[in-house]
Amino acid sequence: MSATPAELEGVLPEGRILSDPGVLASYAHDEAERAPYTLPAAVARPQCTEEVAALVSWCAAHGVPVVARGAGTGLSGGANAVEGCVVVSFEAMNAVLRIDPEERLTIVQPGVINDHLSEVCAEHGLWYPPDPASSPWSTIGGNVATNAGGLCCVKYGVTRDYVLGLEAVVGTGEVVRLGRRSAKGVAGYDLTGLMVGSEGTLGLITEITLRLRGPRPMERTVVGYFPDASTAGRAVAAIAAAGVVPSALELVDRFCLEAVDARKQMGLAAAGDVLLLARCDAPGAAGDEEAATVLASFNAAGATWSARSSDQAEADALFTARRLVYPALERLGQVLTEDVCVPRMKVPDMLACIEGIARRHEVRIAGLAHAGDGNLHPVIVVPYGDDAARARGHVALECVIDKALALGGTVTGEHGVGLLKRRGLAAELSPQALALHRAVKNALDTTGIFNPGKVFL
Amino acid sequence: MSATPAELEGVLPEGRILSDPGVLASYAHDEAERAPYTLPAAVARPQCTEEVAALVSWCAAHGVPVVARGAGTGLSGGANAVEGCVVVSFEAMNAVLRIDPEERLTIVQPGVINDHLSEVCAEHGLWYPPDPASSPWSTIGGNVATNAGGLCCVKYGVTRDYVLGLEAVVGTGEVVRLGRRSAKGVAGYDLTGLMVGSEGTLGLITEITLRLRGPRPMERTVVGYFPDASTAGRAVAAIAAAGVVPSALELVDRFCLEAVDARKQMGLAAAGDVLLLARCDAPGAAGDEEAATVLASFNAAGATWSARSSDQAEADALFTARRLVYPALERLGQVLTEDVCVPRMKVPDMLACIEGIARRHEVRIAGLAHAGDGNLHPVIVVPYGDDAARARGHVALECVIDKALALGGTVTGEHGVGLLKRRGLAAELSPQALALHRAVKNALDTTGIFNPGKVFL
Repeated sequence: MSATPAELEGVLPEGRILSDPGVLASYAHDEAERAPYTLPAAVARPQCTEEVAALVSWCAAHGVPVVARGAGTGLSGGANAVEGCVVVSFEAMNAVLRIDPEERLTIVQPGVINDHLSEVCAEHGLWYPPDPASSPWSTIGGNVATNAGGLCCVKYGVTRDYVLGLEAVVGTGEVVRLGRRSAKGVAGYDLTGLMVGSEGTLGLITEITLRLRGPRPMERTVVGYFPDASTAGRAVAAIAAAGVVPSALELVDRFCLEAVDARKQMGLAAAGDVLLLARCDAPGAAGDEEAATVLASFNAAGATWSARSSDQAEADALFTARRLVYPALERLGQVLTEDVCVPRMKVPDMLACIEGIARRHEVRIAGLAHAGDGNLHPVIVVPYGDDAARARGHVALECVIDKALALGGTVTGEHGVGLLKRRGLAAELSPQALALHRAVKNALDTTGIFNPGKVFL
Repeated sequence: MSATPAELEGVLPEGRILSDPGVLASYAHDEAERAPYTLPAAVARPQCTEEVAALVSWCAAHGVPVVARGAGTGLSGGANAVEGCVVVSFEAMNAVLRIDPEERLTIVQPGVINDHLSEVCAEHGLWYPPDPASSPWSTIGGNVATNAGGLCCVKYGVTRDYVLGLEAVVGTGEVVRLGRRSAKGVAGYDLTGLMVGSEGTLGLITEITLRLRGPRPMERTVVGYFPDASTAGRAVAAIAAAGVVPSALELVDRFCLEAVDARKQMGLAAAGDVLLLARCDAPGAAGDEEAATVLASFNAAGATWSARSSDQAEADALFTARRLVYPALERLGQVLTEDVCVPRMKVPDMLACIEGIARRHEVRIAGLAHAGDGNLHPVIVVPYGDDAARARGHVALECVIDKALALGGTVTGEHGVGLLKRRGLAAELSPQALALHRAVKNALDTTGIFNPGKVFL
């Protein structure tokens, strides 16, 4: 079924429904380059939970698909519009409803921008760790829907680790509260955790209660340059073997560094081929020891240059540069991004395999990784309009997925399945596990309206 | 339907089925004093996943209920036998299958004892934090089924935070692998997290992959005695307000202390009325600062005596004494244990309410709590055979549950719903949220054989 904007305008207060074709186009897809999409029938911008409930009730009654959308920064097509759907944008539901320093929790609407929440938390001496590279733009609702990770997740966990409870509109159009506000609780199934990472396929999340931490600790930054990705990978494995859990451990290769240099003239690529950026945040002498161990691991693995940064501004600039890699690469061509995660000690193997895959398929694969938790983001950049290179890139990325599975990893570390990883998910899960997924989906999304065709068929 | 031992003996290899009435009685219930149970039709002790699968297939085909059992140390009746059921004891599946110091994970069978796993981990310089008071006896399978907490969970999280993946036999009798081995992963729904804490109602867990931490840090112990529970509660709130997250913060009152003294002659009750035991484990000077803040919070709240312990053996003895409270109380009478969790800052209110409830219902309620995370375990001990006191105790505990909900808490912090908290769960969840639970249960337990009647009806 499909909705018409005129029908939807009767469901919500005036001004909530957008139907201008140009506007629809800007809500039609996320940032996944190669995922299919269509124009939505309409875009709805509800302003409160009751409006979301009214919309879902109407869509359920009429069999109209509903696609939730945060900021559209997703990288797997999860927010892409499907035939006849209403895209529900949460941009107007963007309030931090409560912040409680003593209980260390916050209650937010889904449209709150990740960095904005971090700023509000910092004003209260609190910290919300999950920090996807998209944090200046992406929303907490989108982060929750995809169980987003980020840089400091290697030590502090991913979005699911911070979601205590939530409010959602489910398939009946009813509003449901799940989870809790207390530190612990085992009352019933973990339906909160089930909703986190379900990519809009089980309901629409309208409010989120997040656990917070105390103030972000002081961090020491250790920098190392390596002659190639495999050598850097050995340094990552050595740090894990030494028992150090850094608060960030990022890998950025020359391709990425040059792209950032082209935008920001930082001279990053002048110093070496593959950069590892580590942070250590244990308090006091323990943190200094961690930093020393990381530095020693860098050198033992074969760093061509390494140092503990003594300049906080310089260190921050390096991490800002890391966040600029995607936009910088996009200026060079079409970006095909991968997101596999392998056991930490397999990082060197995986990086070596990626180098081989790049050679075999005649594509250049930029190296970018949350290396400390084995979450690799190899990026293929193909010249705009070069269909042959693009086709080779797609094949290469499928090879990367297969190799990650062969090494005991997963097809998606933090970007989600969306449309791009459906084949990978089916390869990772057994038919029996996939059947359980379908059973859960059918049980909660009884009319099949929530983001149909995403994650699995 | 019901099974006969003779029928079951044909399903599994010889020696797996127990049917002696005395033996059946010892597998008929857990340690929840007031939960109903019956004799099981049989007890099965499978030795491998394939045997579990064969058993579940047979039970599904014949509509025979299956009740999973670890060590039977549960406190909510979750493992209690139901009419015609087969109790599946995992005591013969007790191997630590793998321990991987570099990836910091272990793969275990469900029957492994918690303390045994801790010992094995320690030999490899690793640490599995979840430490329920039952850790000398309870199994990892039972811990996972109930999402067990413990003393150090205030800082290090509960069982679910450590379960990376698992193998389970589901309603079809099929064996399913869920989750992952990598540090991160968002491939599909979090069915692993859904199984954790599902109390045997969604399937039987046959193997568990657990995340581990590096070696347990050195801890400083701070001890404070208070004139009453409410004053101690204010100290707990003050520590939270000061931003300190201790690695344990336990409350034990005179009733409990005297019970332990009666067994161990430690003189614990001589020093004061309500004991708070705190541990701080940040490295180096940071940990010393934490301990100083805890000590200052104790004193500011009104401690009658307080000290940072300088004797590690003495400090360990205090925590051992804390673990002995349940068995010590059981020698004094029938123990009715509660398990509510409230927001941390509500601990003083909740403790004051419990004192009022004890007075109104003329019962003595022993104070025992993982106070740092707001998880209170008020314990009523009634003389054996005093049915009137027991009846008053039951009413008092229902009042405690209602008060916890009124303060924004939950009816069960870590013991699970089982049979005892079904009313509380229904009071905590909305009808819509309960409907979602039923939908998930029906979707995964298609023949309704898994622990029927537990958690919700």
